[in-house]
Amino acid sequence: MATGSGKFPSMHPIRGFRLGTTDAGIKVADRKDLVIMEIAQGSSVAAVFTQNRFCAAPVTISKQHLEQAQPHFLLVNTGNANAGTGEQGIADSISCCQALADVTGSELNQVLPFSTGVIGEPLPVDTICDAVPAAIEQLSEEGWADAAEGILTTDTLPKGATTTFDIQGSPVTITGICKGSGMIKPNMATMLGFVATDASIDEELLHSALRKANGQSFNRITVDGDTSTNDAAILIATGTSGVVIDEINFDQFLAQLTEIFIELAQSIIRDGEGASKFVTINVERAGNVSEALSVAYAVAESPLVKTALTASDPNWGRILAAVGRADVEDLDVSKIQIRLNAVLIAENGGRAKSYTEAQGQQAMQAEDIEINIQLNRGSIKETLWTTDLSYEYVRINAEYRT
Amino acid sequence: MATGSGKFPSMHPIRGFRLGTTDAGIKVADRKDLVIMEIAQGSSVAAVFTQNRFCAAPVTISKQHLEQAQPHFLLVNTGNANAGTGEQGIADSISCCQALADVTGSELNQVLPFSTGVIGEPLPVDTICDAVPAAIEQLSEEGWADAAEGILTTDTLPKGATTTFDIQGSPVTITGICKGSGMIKPNMATMLGFVATDASIDEELLHSALRKANGQSFNRITVDGDTSTNDAAILIATGTSGVVIDEINFDQFLAQLTEIFIELAQSIIRDGEGASKFVTINVERAGNVSEALSVAYAVAESPLVKTALTASDPNWGRILAAVGRADVEDLDVSKIQIRLNAVLIAENGGRAKSYTEAQGQQAMQAEDIEINIQLNRGSIKETLWTTDLSYEYVRINAEYRT
Repeated sequence: MATGSGKFPSMHPIRGFRLGTTDAGIKVADRKDLVIMEIAQGSSVAAVFTQNRFCAAPVTISKQHLEQAQPHFLLVNTGNANAGTGEQGIADSISCCQALADVTGSELNQVLPFSTGVIGEPLPVDTICDAVPAAIEQLSEEGWADAAEGILTTDTLPKGATTTFDIQGSPVTITGICKGSGMIKPNMATMLGFVATDASIDEELLHSALRKANGQSFNRITVDGDTSTNDAAILIATGTSGVVIDEINFDQFLAQLTEIFIELAQSIIRDGEGASKFVTINVERAGNVSEALSVAYAVAESPLVKTALTASDPNWGRILAAVGRADVEDLDVSKIQIRLNAVLIAENGGRAKSYTEAQGQQAMQAEDIEINIQLNRGSIKETLWTTDLSYEYVRINAEYRT
Repeated sequence: MATGSGKFPSMHPIRGFRLGTTDAGIKVADRKDLVIMEIAQGSSVAAVFTQNRFCAAPVTISKQHLEQAQPHFLLVNTGNANAGTGEQGIADSISCCQALADVTGSELNQVLPFSTGVIGEPLPVDTICDAVPAAIEQLSEEGWADAAEGILTTDTLPKGATTTFDIQGSPVTITGICKGSGMIKPNMATMLGFVATDASIDEELLHSALRKANGQSFNRITVDGDTSTNDAAILIATGTSGVVIDEINFDQFLAQLTEIFIELAQSIIRDGEGASKFVTINVERAGNVSEALSVAYAVAESPLVKTALTASDPNWGRILAAVGRADVEDLDVSKIQIRLNAVLIAENGGRAKSYTEAQGQQAMQAEDIEINIQLNRGSIKETLWTTDLSYEYVRINAEYRT
């Protein structure tokens, strides 16, 4: 299941960034599962990673290599997360990076590894190393669509976003792909996201842009509240457009970048495991960001709210109960207003006088639903996106791996 | 679905505490749905209630009445939670208490109301008031089994526990019932629990006993992480055994009381919505209670761990990922050991060398499963109990109310 059109966009290439994809046979045969991305010299690279303490071996290695050298290649495999694999996992990740470095004449620490898939299985190092030359052969600036397929796990659809816009009269392009469907509650990162631009931007500004765009996108989605061990989002600026991003045009660039990030993040929710609904949760007039997010996540992660959504049941009492258990000091429930789309369902601590079941039913029937919660105790607004909890979610996760 | 034998015990009556049950027809016809409990004069009463800010009208009224007077009657209805009902809910709850007060010649504030069922529907006041005399007619010290049925909602089984033991050579009895199956993550209370003893114990000590027993039982279970609006646990001491509980024998009494509370709390988990597994999560050698509970709840509430449990799939990587995202400062994952029952599955940041899939499979096949997590950073141990996440859970909660 998935919501939305599921159409993959026609991707604008980024000069100086090439992608090559092949089927190495890591978990199953004849499925794209190994992607190599090549970053031209002189590019800037920024990255954010999972905050999960059981972070995967490739996350540890990528962080180390980023500190040591300018990245030249990204090596991405699906089918195996190389997480929970201890010292052996670290050695295996290094072996794969070394194979790519050897073939391309790079240094080991110019390769950043990324893995996604089953946790706790040993990485099939030989299978990956053997397939490296085939992936390199495919390297092309037109390789986005194949790469978008090559990084999927339980996803049902490839996910991409692309835009071209002018800065001071010159065209700039941003193009990106991501994957993710379950174990989705990114914390400072996403499952895997790779975004490139041909703008020229120094690493400090690039990091700032990544952190800000990420904060409004991948860090604002949840399928099941489970933070992955392998989350990573990478932003590359090749500078090949000749347009330099500075303090003056930064906000303009950031706005476009954030739109691409939100589009990618939403595509993860639209393809959330078992998703039949795309749910936007707006918490408005909160006292601070923390309490706004606490309310939003309490609602988004409530199994009772999620099962009501799957049934298109306007069981607003469950929304209210979730708001009531959120971590908000001195919450005055009599001031709260809750709406399904534009329909006022709750105020003054109970059901709104104007509310009818027919109104709620109509709002709930749609595939895209907004839950709007006004706390009326401040001026902060936060938005996040989530899915319902369906039989299909249970089926996928009870059957995956067995 | 439910786990365990599901046998309802033969309940020891408590002299001075009578229960009467009838079918008022609150939600459906011919189902026990109204329970009145009578507390003899001279008894002590202690209570704890939900911390959900959208607490139900009966919770608000019970708290007020407890401050004003010595309770004489408990009035419990199922089929309607009278929650999210605003000012009208408060008025409705008072009307029901008044009806019972009128018939029995009590004061309004000597009646404590309790409601459980659907949130957000108006309480059918006339239906309840009309049935009060029939419930009073049934009042009996032998009324426990009927009352245990009369407080159920989505529960599939009545829940009770009872014990008789000696204190300083004289027999003391503790008997209790509870209900709860979904929207279960009590916070300072349970769904509904009513426990009585014939010991004599002053209210201060009784409150202390209730808080301590509750802290190790109802506050240590979770089905779906959703804290109800109506949770309440009540402890009554009639004193009719003549045995006085004081500072000296308090610990002995508390140990027995805690066992009853744990038995009741576990019966909620065994009857958790859609439950096919009864899961004990032990977090040992933690630095403090807060981090132990953070780890335990992260695992207990992970939809991915819960769906692996439903599939009897020893997908320990999901347990490890949940531990890794728990709120523990400077967690060193290389020190953590995780066991399924006695089987060591993870250590040194990855799968244990000695572990085989066959061992994990065998542990997971059982209905009762222990997940034992040693953090090895202190001396604190916390235990909680939870269930799996099954198709049946989704079915129950997608169909309930619709």
